[in-house]
Amino acid sequence: MENASMSEEKVEEEEQIVNPWEVAAKDGGKIDYDKLIDKFGCQRLDKALIERVESLTGRPAHVFLRRGVFFAHRDFGDILDAFQKGNKFYLYTGRGPSSESLHLGHLIPFMFTKYLQDAFKVPLVIQLTDDEKCMWKNLSVEESQRLARENAKDIIACGFDISRTFIFSDFDYVGGAFYKNMVRVSKCVTYNKVVGIFGFTGEDHIGKVSFPPVQAVPSFPSSFPHLFSGKENLRCLIPCAIDQDPYFRMTRDVAPRIGYHKPSLIESTFFPALQGETGKMSASDPNSAIYVTDSGKDIKTKINRYAFSGGQDSIEKHRKYGANLEVDIPIKYLGFFLEDDDELENIRAEYGAGRMLTGEVKQRLVQVLTEIVERHQRARAAVTDEMVDAFMAVRPLPRMFD
Amino acid sequence: MENASMSEEKVEEEEQIVNPWEVAAKDGGKIDYDKLIDKFGCQRLDKALIERVESLTGRPAHVFLRRGVFFAHRDFGDILDAFQKGNKFYLYTGRGPSSESLHLGHLIPFMFTKYLQDAFKVPLVIQLTDDEKCMWKNLSVEESQRLARENAKDIIACGFDISRTFIFSDFDYVGGAFYKNMVRVSKCVTYNKVVGIFGFTGEDHIGKVSFPPVQAVPSFPSSFPHLFSGKENLRCLIPCAIDQDPYFRMTRDVAPRIGYHKPSLIESTFFPALQGETGKMSASDPNSAIYVTDSGKDIKTKINRYAFSGGQDSIEKHRKYGANLEVDIPIKYLGFFLEDDDELENIRAEYGAGRMLTGEVKQRLVQVLTEIVERHQRARAAVTDEMVDAFMAVRPLPRMFD
Repeated sequence: MENASMSEEKVEEEEQIVNPWEVAAKDGGKIDYDKLIDKFGCQRLDKALIERVESLTGRPAHVFLRRGVFFAHRDFGDILDAFQKGNKFYLYTGRGPSSESLHLGHLIPFMFTKYLQDAFKVPLVIQLTDDEKCMWKNLSVEESQRLARENAKDIIACGFDISRTFIFSDFDYVGGAFYKNMVRVSKCVTYNKVVGIFGFTGEDHIGKVSFPPVQAVPSFPSSFPHLFSGKENLRCLIPCAIDQDPYFRMTRDVAPRIGYHKPSLIESTFFPALQGETGKMSASDPNSAIYVTDSGKDIKTKINRYAFSGGQDSIEKHRKYGANLEVDIPIKYLGFFLEDDDELENIRAEYGAGRMLTGEVKQRLVQVLTEIVERHQRARAAVTDEMVDAFMAVRPLPRMFD
Repeated sequence: MENASMSEEKVEEEEQIVNPWEVAAKDGGKIDYDKLIDKFGCQRLDKALIERVESLTGRPAHVFLRRGVFFAHRDFGDILDAFQKGNKFYLYTGRGPSSESLHLGHLIPFMFTKYLQDAFKVPLVIQLTDDEKCMWKNLSVEESQRLARENAKDIIACGFDISRTFIFSDFDYVGGAFYKNMVRVSKCVTYNKVVGIFGFTGEDHIGKVSFPPVQAVPSFPSSFPHLFSGKENLRCLIPCAIDQDPYFRMTRDVAPRIGYHKPSLIESTFFPALQGETGKMSASDPNSAIYVTDSGKDIKTKINRYAFSGGQDSIEKHRKYGANLEVDIPIKYLGFFLEDDDELENIRAEYGAGRMLTGEVKQRLVQVLTEIVERHQRARAAVTDEMVDAFMAVRPLPRMFD
């Protein structure tokens, strides 16, 4: 009996784990996104929705939409329905500032959010959860705030429109209407409930238990009276990686009980590590990711040395069997960042048939990433402290819905 | 075995319960304050400390000190040591605004705090925990804030010096340095720890789990940068009823770990209900207490009809045996509010010997309380909304230590 129950436990342990603090596939394999959609209870983002986005915005869908990087959603259709009737919405995304510099995976939600902001012409709030990182990573308050400001510069460098964008640090902004909403949410969520959603234990500190409402309440317009006074019915759309879904399941559960709309979500897959697609990149291994601070030479070295290849062991075998595109990281990365659909299709065909070699694909990827990273570095160098202050000023947004 | 363990549990259940939400004596008897001091681990406030207060302040000890209303403390001696060396401190007290009008028991910590403020000439912060009451009593945010303002008027009517007093509502004030300290405290307290201190269960909402740090952090000067900037080492003295001790046990545990002094406490007994000394008065039974809104006629009726008497059943027996002062509520109440020691001693002697009748003692008590309540009502009627705004304004205090 004991053995049987132990082996059952083992099976459970081997299931994939996806929550805001841990992403681990079963047996070190790939994340099964279909299972994740089933488990979380969100919906797959289908072709019809993507076509609606194109027709409503009058521009082609972002490459992250066309290629399934953003692949799941909750009530995204409600946002589009309302938009079609002339009712705008606002965007909410965020970042936990736990490290000095961002890697490419960190940029993905921001690049996509910028596209949404430009395409729908809507306001955006960006939460920097310096309080969360102070509590989870055991950073000091001051260090968390410093990292939040550094990260804000990278976020601003993504090109957000200051006349529609409010960036805030929790340590600076929690209080007033925001705190009132935190209390309203907290009243509706039992400890057992957060244990079920987030897996906290009795040995976890109460800061962890207190935090989920902090990430919940930017979903409610009344948390931002300087932006949305008189617009308390505005809908909210949250672009994020799917590991953040637990926070917003909780938020959506509570929202109608306190008189608010449920926020809608549009959720991405994880950006794979250079070593292979087994989860998110690891901040503890600098060679697992391309950082926005990497030089062209760094990028070349990392891609050539560490990017897991689906090519064959020898040129002879490669010419004969072709590359295994399913596990090839350069092809995955090009899928995120090479915008030209025709070129990507051509590379896949040639590489898959063995006519193109790994080295050639990696060379093209180095070009693509170097261009993106150098463009980001130029943009970030132009972000002054005054600009950070301006984005983070508690102020009305001059062009909310123009 | 099962029966034995059940009966053990029963014994435990019959122990007195004292926490911020429940005060219940064993078997409906009196609270055993000696046992409480032992259980909580605080110290009895002895004669030597009271004499030190008199010599340091150059004025007679308050009646609440002389008569043991404030009877326990934690590190009060450290406050006096520092004061003697010329290092002042600040006072912190508070109220959970759960009802429209206060009863006499609610006034006790404020009357005593006013005496301490006047005697030591020190600044005072008063926390109105409208967030707590919103969460525990299921009041709306707006109703909790309304009650906080109403209660602030009663507090101001106690005569606090506006040039040394800052009153704040959590809903208005939580944020900034205060929130940062909340996070610092939260990081140091596990869920198991708060369960041990406060007895929360998994079915309690997470607002309850999040709240203890909110009541903890006014103990730290850095939570009030507009008052104590550059004075982060200032000591804090908290006058409160002893049911609040659990919050400050937790606070004192955490303080040195985050670089702050442990706050000192000076703690009172509970003010007994008219029906007898079995705990605190009950807000749900208006006839269990004298309210500051009661008329002279109300007071007379309540005292005559409900105040539990230690007098004998008949005049003959009373003349023969005298009153039982140990259970007599009019004598207890006079002990709180009749300032003249000689007169009180005389009444105790005459009544205890049966020469004075219950009716006569009650008549004197009605006089004393009516005078206090009418004085309070006059003072409260003079408190304008502008004065409330002025006390609650986030501002430096002009006469912090003059």
